[in-house]
Amino acid sequence: MAWNSVIMAPRVKEILSWYGADNPGTLTNLARLLNHGTLGGTGKMVILPVDQGFEHGPARSFAMNPAAYSPLYHFELAIEAGCNAYAAPLGFLEAGAREFAGDVPLILKLNSKDLTSDEKDPISARTGTIDDALRLGCSAVGFTIYPGSALRLEMYEQLAEFAHEAKQAGLVVIVWSYPRGTSLSKEGETAMDVDGYAAHIACQIGAHIVKIKLPTAHLEQAAAKKVYETEKVPIATTAERVRHCVQCAFDGRRILIFSGGPSESDEKLLDSIRAIREGGGFGSIIGRNSFQRSKKDGLKLLRQIMEIYADQKK
Amino acid sequence: MAWNSVIMAPRVKEILSWYGADNPGTLTNLARLLNHGTLGGTGKMVILPVDQGFEHGPARSFAMNPAAYSPLYHFELAIEAGCNAYAAPLGFLEAGAREFAGDVPLILKLNSKDLTSDEKDPISARTGTIDDALRLGCSAVGFTIYPGSALRLEMYEQLAEFAHEAKQAGLVVIVWSYPRGTSLSKEGETAMDVDGYAAHIACQIGAHIVKIKLPTAHLEQAAAKKVYETEKVPIATTAERVRHCVQCAFDGRRILIFSGGPSESDEKLLDSIRAIREGGGFGSIIGRNSFQRSKKDGLKLLRQIMEIYADQKK
Amino acid sequence: MAWNSVIMAPRVKEILSWYGADNPGTLTNLARLLNHGTLGGTGKMVILPVDQGFEHGPARSFAMNPAAYSPLYHFELAIEAGCNAYAAPLGFLEAGAREFAGDVPLILKLNSKDLTSDEKDPISARTGTIDDALRLGCSAVGFTIYPGSALRLEMYEQLAEFAHEAKQAGLVVIVWSYPRGTSLSKEGETAMDVDGYAAHIACQIGAHIVKIKLPTAHLEQAAAKKVYETEKVPIATTAERVRHCVQCAFDGRRILIFSGGPSESDEKLLDSIRAIREGGGFGSIIGRNSFQRSKKDGLKLLRQIMEIYADQKK
Amino acid sequence: MAWNSVIMAPRVKEILSWYGADNPGTLTNLARLLNHGTLGGTGKMVILPVDQGFEHGPARSFAMNPAAYSPLYHFELAIEAGCNAYAAPLGFLEAGAREFAGDVPLILKLNSKDLTSDEKDPISARTGTIDDALRLGCSAVGFTIYPGSALRLEMYEQLAEFAHEAKQAGLVVIVWSYPRGTSLSKEGETAMDVDGYAAHIACQIGAHIVKIKLPTAHLEQAAAKKVYETEKVPIATTAERVRHCVQCAFDGRRILIFSGGPSESDEKLLDSIRAIREGGGFGSIIGRNSFQRSKKDGLKLLRQIMEIYADQKK
Amino acid sequence: MAWNSVIMAPRVKEILSWYGADNPGTLTNLARLLNHGTLGGTGKMVILPVDQGFEHGPARSFAMNPAAYSPLYHFELAIEAGCNAYAAPLGFLEAGAREFAGDVPLILKLNSKDLTSDEKDPISARTGTIDDALRLGCSAVGFTIYPGSALRLEMYEQLAEFAHEAKQAGLVVIVWSYPRGTSLSKEGETAMDVDGYAAHIACQIGAHIVKIKLPTAHLEQAAAKKVYETEKVPIATTAERVRHCVQCAFDGRRILIFSGGPSESDEKLLDSIRAIREGGGFGSIIGRNSFQRSKKDGLKLLRQIMEIYADQKK
Repeated sequence: MAWNSVIMAPRVKEILSWYGADNPGTLTNLARLLNHGTLGGTGKMVILPVDQGFEHGPARSFAMNPAAYSPLYHFELAIEAGCNAYAAPLGFLEAGAREFAGDVPLILKLNSKDLTSDEKDPISARTGTIDDALRLGCSAVGFTIYPGSALRLEMYEQLAEFAHEAKQAGLVVIVWSYPRGTSLSKEGETAMDVDGYAAHIACQIGAHIVKIKLPTAHLEQAAAKKVYETEKVPIATTAERVRHCVQCAFDGRRILIFSGGPSESDEKLLDSIRAIREGGGFGSIIGRNSFQRSKKDGLKLLRQIMEIYADQKK
Repeated sequence: MAWNSVIMAPRVKEILSWYGADNPGTLTNLARLLNHGTLGGTGKMVILPVDQGFEHGPARSFAMNPAAYSPLYHFELAIEAGCNAYAAPLGFLEAGAREFAGDVPLILKLNSKDLTSDEKDPISARTGTIDDALRLGCSAVGFTIYPGSALRLEMYEQLAEFAHEAKQAGLVVIVWSYPRGTSLSKEGETAMDVDGYAAHIACQIGAHIVKIKLPTAHLEQAAAKKVYETEKVPIATTAERVRHCVQCAFDGRRILIFSGGPSESDEKLLDSIRAIREGGGFGSIIGRNSFQRSKKDGLKLLRQIMEIYADQKK
Repeated sequence: MAWNSVIMAPRVKEILSWYGADNPGTLTNLARLLNHGTLGGTGKMVILPVDQGFEHGPARSFAMNPAAYSPLYHFELAIEAGCNAYAAPLGFLEAGAREFAGDVPLILKLNSKDLTSDEKDPISARTGTIDDALRLGCSAVGFTIYPGSALRLEMYEQLAEFAHEAKQAGLVVIVWSYPRGTSLSKEGETAMDVDGYAAHIACQIGAHIVKIKLPTAHLEQAAAKKVYETEKVPIATTAERVRHCVQCAFDGRRILIFSGGPSESDEKLLDSIRAIREGGGFGSIIGRNSFQRSKKDGLKLLRQIMEIYADQKK
Repeated sequence: MAWNSVIMAPRVKEILSWYGADNPGTLTNLARLLNHGTLGGTGKMVILPVDQGFEHGPARSFAMNPAAYSPLYHFELAIEAGCNAYAAPLGFLEAGAREFAGDVPLILKLNSKDLTSDEKDPISARTGTIDDALRLGCSAVGFTIYPGSALRLEMYEQLAEFAHEAKQAGLVVIVWSYPRGTSLSKEGETAMDVDGYAAHIACQIGAHIVKIKLPTAHLEQAAAKKVYETEKVPIATTAERVRHCVQCAFDGRRILIFSGGPSESDEKLLDSIRAIREGGGFGSIIGRNSFQRSKKDGLKLLRQIMEIYADQKK
Repeated sequence: MAWNSVIMAPRVKEILSWYGADNPGTLTNLARLLNHGTLGGTGKMVILPVDQGFEHGPARSFAMNPAAYSPLYHFELAIEAGCNAYAAPLGFLEAGAREFAGDVPLILKLNSKDLTSDEKDPISARTGTIDDALRLGCSAVGFTIYPGSALRLEMYEQLAEFAHEAKQAGLVVIVWSYPRGTSLSKEGETAMDVDGYAAHIACQIGAHIVKIKLPTAHLEQAAAKKVYETEKVPIATTAERVRHCVQCAFDGRRILIFSGGPSESDEKLLDSIRAIREGGGFGSIIGRNSFQRSKKDGLKLLRQIMEIYADQKK
């Protein structure tokens, strides 16, 4: 059900009802995200993010599919695949926002980080503004935080400022919450307790939509581990872990979506989509898996993912 | 005596008289806090704070009572228990402020800290604003300082700025004053001298209401210890120590309340409430003890606490 | 001669004439300070400062005279003693400014420091604003700098900003200039050369009134020592050192007052007051010596001090 | 075809079409740059930059051609050579902007760095503002970033702020993107992967025009090297490397120009110009090679360069 | 020729013509500086600066001539000597600006540093504002930078901000450019290459007038040394070095003046004045040599200096 339908889908109405503190401007933009594309009206989302050029370098991101060097390519991919939205840093959005104005909801990534050295306690540079998002016709802004980094409090403050300004401007706030930093082991970055905590923090700072990685069954923090074991929190399967993450995100009253992660076999990726659906997750952000192959193959994969999400009863 | 009573209780009038520097807007909100709920009009307060999800992680906070994952739960708990107010970070308040508008006075926690590593000199991130408090209909804002931390001066300046802006906006300023940091021993965090000092600092920076932990009889700072002993300041019993804290908080002319601390036996907790009452304390903030059990049990405990406070002659 | 006298004392007129760069608002407030109380019209000042609760802790400050825990006590003490003004941090002033509005000129201390560890290079937190001073009806603001601290340049910049804003608002700027920090020996903190330098710096940054400690005959800085010796600057007696300090403070064209220091015998204190008078100092700030005893004894001492100042011919 | 021609060259129209997110003010200034001078209308640019006085010192920059000490000299050189624009720091532009108003498009370098010590992680000082650019009649502003420096995130944020303000004011944003810093080997500063990455980052932060150094065939980052080899990215010749850089700069939809580097033989320099042309680069910034010789020789070289660029079919 | 002459001296007109980027307000103030006093209309300047009280301490500055403790003394000295202007920090100007309003052009020193320890990488505190300069009737502001200090970039940014604001307000910007810091040897602080570089940087950041120390023939930086030797830059005599400094200051199109340095024999000082005149320097700033002696002797020396400057043909 597309966003210009005469009657809004009940599930979208329900989701909007959770955001009682927001102004009608933000609700309108949230509805635009939820009502656009193949999954419009289902309450599920698949978003195309393309910040890898900035984060990993252009050749590492696009050399395997050189058409993707063009900023126009990603707008087309998101539109043709029927994604709910397309997310990118300032430059990539500036380079196509006029050509594709109104074709797909846009998300401006407000901060980015490059990779010229291995940083132990990461933080990103703020390279976009709320005003940029408005002048480019975006429906939402995106911001990355790294809970676990020694610089996390600084990021939380930056996010709080952006979120406050975005809400006044009627924009949706989407937080990429990625645990990382010297206070965590490598395994701890996707630990169940840490990942749920990361989702909760983003919600507490005021995110409308939170994106995390799929957690493993590892438990990182001793004090948390004890509680998970004592209370017998079910986290054995991916679907159970997704369900627990949803619980951590205000008991399901905030939209929680998951990243696709690095290229693995398509079948494994689709299995994880099924687990997200089963666990009550709200969708996926699929970047490298969609644009680091031919457009035909990328479209095919994105449609398979959307079919899985569309398939569920709800 | 509820806030909408025709005639205000004399004790509330008396308390308001101590805040002669504040505008009528702040006095009105202070009266709302003092007149609401079971203890309305008595001059005593019991506040429900729920920032543990941010501070300790969601599973450690809510897994023992999964209903508490929902932000709606805590509004209901505070309302049904007849608390004077409900305090939480931005996200939790945003998620219920419209549903429960006008049902209970709200306190926006302006700063928060997570727990991904053990920090020796803690500081919190500013994740809310005065403008957020106003748009959510809050009566007060809360701010945590850590006297003893190497970063304390930065916190004092942040608090001073927030307090100044809050007072202009007619809001009440509540300070969580928790001694912690490398300049203190573990025992020193709740030492009598340190705790009284923490209360005094918060008052000097302009707090209307100060929350501290119950002090022990330990004396941490050598120069202070000498004075306590020379002047024979009575600090043997909990009630005496409460009375001394009240003295440190502008000789009783600022509202001083105490935290409930970690889960202990209910009977011990109720004993400490009696000591607070006996020492002239103004009430309690009860978090984990109230929501880390079933709602029925939580309501029971909160009501027992309120009965003790309501019981006193004053 | 009280400030509401019909004709202003010639000495006050003379002092005001030194501040030709200031607006009439600031001159009016300076006249209020000089014309108030027992010493009104003499060109001498005795000010009551009470920031020890913040700086040293409440018990160390008030346990020997528990009435002094109350913020009201100090207003009363200053008024009854006939002090020119009462200086305190925000909280203490907020707690009595309405009750005693118009009874005594007030000085808001804009920055304060606590004492939870021994800091080698001190700096204070800014806990008040010019706007606070105005809403509380203050005539002046006070600011502490620590020349000698590694952080002194930061303090000078903060002071410069406050002073600029205060002068626009018609307030008087009073600087507590206390040499301290790793670049100084303990003895150097009150060395003649260092103390005179501290007075000069405060004047250069734009202070109207400067408060320093009484210097010893010690000379700290080698390059300065050489000049003192070559030029035979007379600094043998306290009165001579006071006279040299006055010289360093723009050759007597800025009001220079002295702190009373820690409790010593009253007679020694009164001797030092006589030396200040003899050396041409403008008065004293008497804190701990006045409120760390019974009110009766405090009033007695303050009156003795004022009698000495009033006694001189000038 | 000069900027005052009645009909704009189709190539310029095409280039302007890539900047759909910009306001007509910025497009007008971009057209001024592209339509001015010998190469006006060709879509190619040769810019004269003179920031070496600040960056390396005046004697090292101008002693070999003392006429160049004068700020007027460089305006004349740029105008007589028919350059598209002249770029310099504030002082040099202030010293001639009135004399040569309207004679040549100006670019204000917003940040600069001196060379009094060898800094490992460089950053420049912001010495100009958007307002300066406007009052001096500039068409564009220039900003240097050093990807690879530990301070790069700070520079990205500064650039983002300047770029945002410049675009609102209708100015063109030109970024000097020079990899440098402890995270890179000396050879890595001009490595193919690093240089392409540097171009991409500048585009993502919102540059209209990016200036990089000519890359070598060296590959610095292991993860990138693997991709270049697996995907057989052609980078053997200078022209191929230029073509790949263009690809990294939004697949040719951002103007990418190259620096001339330190003085080498003119023939080698002209060869590199031919390679830039062949690889689809948009032009050159020629500083030291043009003003560190007599004006006659400088003009001769600049004209040879422009002839090469003008020669191509496109 | 005094500033109130009916027809302005041609040399002053010529100098004003170099500042084409400035508004008429700044040109008017520049004319006031050039037209005032004994040297008015000659294009030469002698300025009296008195910041030694702040920089070195009052006794080290004034004990040898105690009349100089008074802020009024220096106004009188500058006026009686016929100096072009008087420069001092905020406090000293505030203390006489009304008494001597309109008698001599004033320069507010915007930043100052004290001397309580030996700092290796100096920076000054900002203790004045453009607004202060305006309210005190100043014609110019002064700012000190220390090229060579690790903190120099911070100073350049501060200067750029002040200069921008000053120019908008029609004030003249004078920069004290003193190489100092860990990147320089002691000898390097007055090295020819370093001193010329320091002059150039100040001009590039936008200074109207630059003050440096007289350079020695030492060459500090290897890369620069090579150029001086290869290009045979004449720097053997003081006059030659002055001429080269003037060249570095935009080839003579910015006003470059020299400091008098520490007390040496008067004859040596007058010799250096002759060398400045011969080399084309624009004048001197004479501080300690003028006020660290009796007024009679100070006036005598200043007049001798002015006679030398007035003597030249130009």
